[in-house]
Amino acid sequence: MAVPLTLVTDPNDPGARRTLTVAPGTTILKAAHAGGVDITATCGGRGRCTSCRVKFLAGLPPPPTIMDEVQLGDDLVREGYRLACQCVLHEAVTVQPAPPLDERSFQILGAGPGVRQFGRVLLDSGIAKQVIKVAVPREEHHQTSDLEQLLAAVGLTTADVVPAVLQRLPSALRDDPTGVTVTTFAEGGASAGESTGRQRILAVERGDTALMKFGLAIDVGTTSVVTTLVELESGEQLASVSSLNPQTVFGGDLMSRIAFAQFNPGNLRKLHTRIVGLLNQHIAQICRDSGVLAKWIYKVVVVGNTCMHHILLGIDPSHVGLAPYAPVMRHAVTLSARELFLKIAPEARVCFLPLVAGFVGADAVGVALATRIYDSAEIRIAVDIGTNGEVLLGSRDRLWACSAPAGPALEGAQIRHGMRGALGAIDRVTVDDDIHVHTIGETDALGICGSGIIDLLAGLLDRGVIDWTGLIQVDLRDSLPPRLAARVVMRGEERQVIVLRPGEAGARQEIVLTQDDVRQVQLAKGAIASGVTMLQHVAGVPAEAISELMLAGGFGNYVSVESALRIGLIPPLPRERIRYVGNAASLGAQLCLVSETERARAETVAARIEHVSLAAHPDFEGIFVDCMNFPQAR
Amino acid sequence: MAVPLTLVTDPNDPGARRTLTVAPGTTILKAAHAGGVDITATCGGRGRCTSCRVKFLAGLPPPPTIMDEVQLGDDLVREGYRLACQCVLHEAVTVQPAPPLDERSFQILGAGPGVRQFGRVLLDSGIAKQVIKVAVPREEHHQTSDLEQLLAAVGLTTADVVPAVLQRLPSALRDDPTGVTVTTFAEGGASAGESTGRQRILAVERGDTALMKFGLAIDVGTTSVVTTLVELESGEQLASVSSLNPQTVFGGDLMSRIAFAQFNPGNLRKLHTRIVGLLNQHIAQICRDSGVLAKWIYKVVVVGNTCMHHILLGIDPSHVGLAPYAPVMRHAVTLSARELFLKIAPEARVCFLPLVAGFVGADAVGVALATRIYDSAEIRIAVDIGTNGEVLLGSRDRLWACSAPAGPALEGAQIRHGMRGALGAIDRVTVDDDIHVHTIGETDALGICGSGIIDLLAGLLDRGVIDWTGLIQVDLRDSLPPRLAARVVMRGEERQVIVLRPGEAGARQEIVLTQDDVRQVQLAKGAIASGVTMLQHVAGVPAEAISELMLAGGFGNYVSVESALRIGLIPPLPRERIRYVGNAASLGAQLCLVSETERARAETVAARIEHVSLAAHPDFEGIFVDCMNFPQAR
Repeated sequence: MAVPLTLVTDPNDPGARRTLTVAPGTTILKAAHAGGVDITATCGGRGRCTSCRVKFLAGLPPPPTIMDEVQLGDDLVREGYRLACQCVLHEAVTVQPAPPLDERSFQILGAGPGVRQFGRVLLDSGIAKQVIKVAVPREEHHQTSDLEQLLAAVGLTTADVVPAVLQRLPSALRDDPTGVTVTTFAEGGASAGESTGRQRILAVERGDTALMKFGLAIDVGTTSVVTTLVELESGEQLASVSSLNPQTVFGGDLMSRIAFAQFNPGNLRKLHTRIVGLLNQHIAQICRDSGVLAKWIYKVVVVGNTCMHHILLGIDPSHVGLAPYAPVMRHAVTLSARELFLKIAPEARVCFLPLVAGFVGADAVGVALATRIYDSAEIRIAVDIGTNGEVLLGSRDRLWACSAPAGPALEGAQIRHGMRGALGAIDRVTVDDDIHVHTIGETDALGICGSGIIDLLAGLLDRGVIDWTGLIQVDLRDSLPPRLAARVVMRGEERQVIVLRPGEAGARQEIVLTQDDVRQVQLAKGAIASGVTMLQHVAGVPAEAISELMLAGGFGNYVSVESALRIGLIPPLPRERIRYVGNAASLGAQLCLVSETERARAETVAARIEHVSLAAHPDFEGIFVDCMNFPQAR
Repeated sequence: MAVPLTLVTDPNDPGARRTLTVAPGTTILKAAHAGGVDITATCGGRGRCTSCRVKFLAGLPPPPTIMDEVQLGDDLVREGYRLACQCVLHEAVTVQPAPPLDERSFQILGAGPGVRQFGRVLLDSGIAKQVIKVAVPREEHHQTSDLEQLLAAVGLTTADVVPAVLQRLPSALRDDPTGVTVTTFAEGGASAGESTGRQRILAVERGDTALMKFGLAIDVGTTSVVTTLVELESGEQLASVSSLNPQTVFGGDLMSRIAFAQFNPGNLRKLHTRIVGLLNQHIAQICRDSGVLAKWIYKVVVVGNTCMHHILLGIDPSHVGLAPYAPVMRHAVTLSARELFLKIAPEARVCFLPLVAGFVGADAVGVALATRIYDSAEIRIAVDIGTNGEVLLGSRDRLWACSAPAGPALEGAQIRHGMRGALGAIDRVTVDDDIHVHTIGETDALGICGSGIIDLLAGLLDRGVIDWTGLIQVDLRDSLPPRLAARVVMRGEERQVIVLRPGEAGARQEIVLTQDDVRQVQLAKGAIASGVTMLQHVAGVPAEAISELMLAGGFGNYVSVESALRIGLIPPLPRERIRYVGNAASLGAQLCLVSETERARAETVAARIEHVSLAAHPDFEGIFVDCMNFPQAR
């Protein structure tokens, strides 16, 4: 009674097809995921986006569902496209999934000065290395042990040491005339370790490896994962890798991701395995790029939102997605790399920074640390733009935080021709008598990324192509310059702005901005803006009392501040009070990597942050509706 | 160039054959082990025993080596037998290995009163269970977490908790109206936990499981492994499983086992995997027998000699086998069951008792605890008989220990018709005008176990069949009663005593005691006796100053004290000063299981024990030669 489902990823390559045997009544999406074939489902398979669309190559497409019609439109439905999440299998079919999200050569953020920009950071990573010669036991009657001889040589009377570290100890002690290098970790930094006398032995290596002391700062975002290699003695950033979170195929935003894992341990395991696998890919690549051996990485600091944190630890995030959205745990935890299956020194300490609330995670704590907002004399705002954005407002007196569920639109997802900030993405747009674009790598245009979309909307607003409610002004196009007017079109029921026609800027296909794309951006920027507004409201802080707004996040580094102001993504502050601060969450992780003092501070800062729930606030509705609209013309 | 090697375990079963492809020049033993076929190599493949003998069924047997001739004798060599460890492959052959050591229905030791025989043991296992109802988080603004709510309900402000325990926490807290049961462990016992406030959360279970608190005492011997299930609240022994250490196929005594692993990480991994696998089989069986679920086992105490301890922890034991025989570590360590891959509650604490020296391990510490010798006003001796025996001598003032490398002969190995104390083993022998036997289970005789061999030798000594040097008196047989005389024979070069002919006591084959068997027992009993003599010598304690000799070990419980005295296995003390104390090593582990006070004591006792190295003592040679002989007739 099983039905064959054939998935063709490239119709021109006979090898790029796979046939699965499927129980009738299964959706194509579920069947593909069960069979190990990735079909992206940005909305989590709820018929809310088009990412899982498939084209029927053989077999009869079923009658379109309402979701098919709404999301795909008449044309695509007629051409044989359907949403894989809606399409139930009853007979043999052959389909071609939409191509996966582009993964080539992302712009890598973080190859900056790292923590060295903070002049006053005490470099006390807690990791110390000593090269010693150990006198192996010689006495047969009153015996000691290899470990006791080692501790005596290091000058310790006692230490935490797990048997795994000792497995190769005897030969290490005896084989190299140079001696051995002992790596220890003192929680709370070297000074604390000395005072408590409690050290942990992380590794014993043959010969002299004293100069090899490295750590990783890992920022696990809903959409992007950034891993940075840091030399622990100097704090120098040696390499950085960034890529798409591979969980994205199971849901683009946090709620979709949680819905996928909710009450389904098998799916949770899938998400968990994917992220651990990606981190190990990052480690392999970063070691290749830098020439550092993975076994010389002894400390890791991880930040990420609560859901990403829970999934990485294998903790059921079901209730993070249900009111009151409580996390399962919030305290800082430290594991060994072995427990987390990370392929670095097996006893390396993997430190997770503490969380604040279900939707304000360790990444927000990292932003607070890196921006020093917790120590500011004046009131500042930090906005970390991401799929799950966070807003912090306050000073050394009080500190508030909320989450701003922007969704992935500003990262180019859920946008018809959107893509991440990779090679070929339109990242800059100017609009005058016509539309002009710049692409990353100045290559042929493949799609448009977040900074490009924001520029585009700002320009279209300035030229009156879009009005303050976000409607594309098809009826008023005759008043526009002719070339610009020619780009504003009505296709079927859909209003579109044609950004590029095939051939323009080397575009292989038409690249358009649809009315729905504008709505997606409005939802995203509305979420961020209402987060800022709400915190000002709760804290009773008017715009003029804000000394600075710090824009953080991978995305925040590429967006034009003028465009962001024009579309109302950030509040109307004077330009000079707005500053980029880079990927602050990752920077906060790097601070904790090189400094146990900073890592201890993370706990006091997390405990100080007062969480504000947007949705639970009675004034939220009004604020959100206001923030969805665009600011009136300047 | 590869050569096919076919191994036939049962010539009558066409399914019981396996063909391996082998590089020419490999020995049959190595090829079989590499191919996953167990051929027992009691001496570790050094040509020192006959356990790895194979019979050639097809293909030409190679010319016998000297080892073949010495170990197997002319007859077996002529019949096509060879030692697999000596036989190098050059062409296709088919061989039948000797049957494996018998594994059926061992006499199970330990189904006794357990620790309840110690009236004054404080039952403070450190494991506590609380049934609580947790108010899940309700507040959306100032959030807490599931864990914080749980800790508040338990009455703790802080606790060590690993993320793995939290993975299923949200549903546990919400799904069962009864509440949840929280299991905690306080190192050093409940009182210590209260005073330091530091508890570790081991598990959170749905509903009320407060009565389910179990632990395992595991005694890993060179030849036998005993696992005992204990109810932690009462100290009651619920079930016990004992079996052959599956590492035995790679070497019967400690030195052979170490030689197999020495400088060969692959072989070390094999030994490690075997013992972990066996422990999981024990756990499965013990749970089946008792009806206890494995997830209710929260604490384990492990004892064993240093080599078994190191192998179980994956620690390279190479240098334990090389002078000065130093251990890699000696301190008590605690791991989670998860880290050791034991299939019980994943966070269960697995506590390894401390070691004393390379050949005096945690089992000796267990014996010291269980016999209370460390607290004795008078001088006592404890003898733990095993493949690697230990002798303790002392009182509350001073305590000495040495290891007595008896080898496995007293456990029935390296004896022509020897077997362990299993169904069908001859366990009692009397010698008068003839030889009379008793078998375990009173079934047909299959072989002879240690207690039977000792009875047999004692009887033969008394009747003059063996003289004090151990020589079988073939020449004097005419002076014996006719039926006994008929059993003393010369076959080829070999002196033998025929214990049973086919049919007698249901024996299917002839069961003999060879001259070499007598020599093996002399080596074994010589090792034990010289251990006792040496400690008396070092401590300056004459026999009359010894108030008691305690006989411990699985084997010690079945042997006749009279026979043991007769052959000189133990020193000539008055019978009333000799006492069985059961499997004291396992009992010591059980004490530490039910009492953290006892477990803390293990460390002070281990630190007090003064190790004496037999071989390094200048007087050893003379003592050992004396002890090899049998006492002159009474």
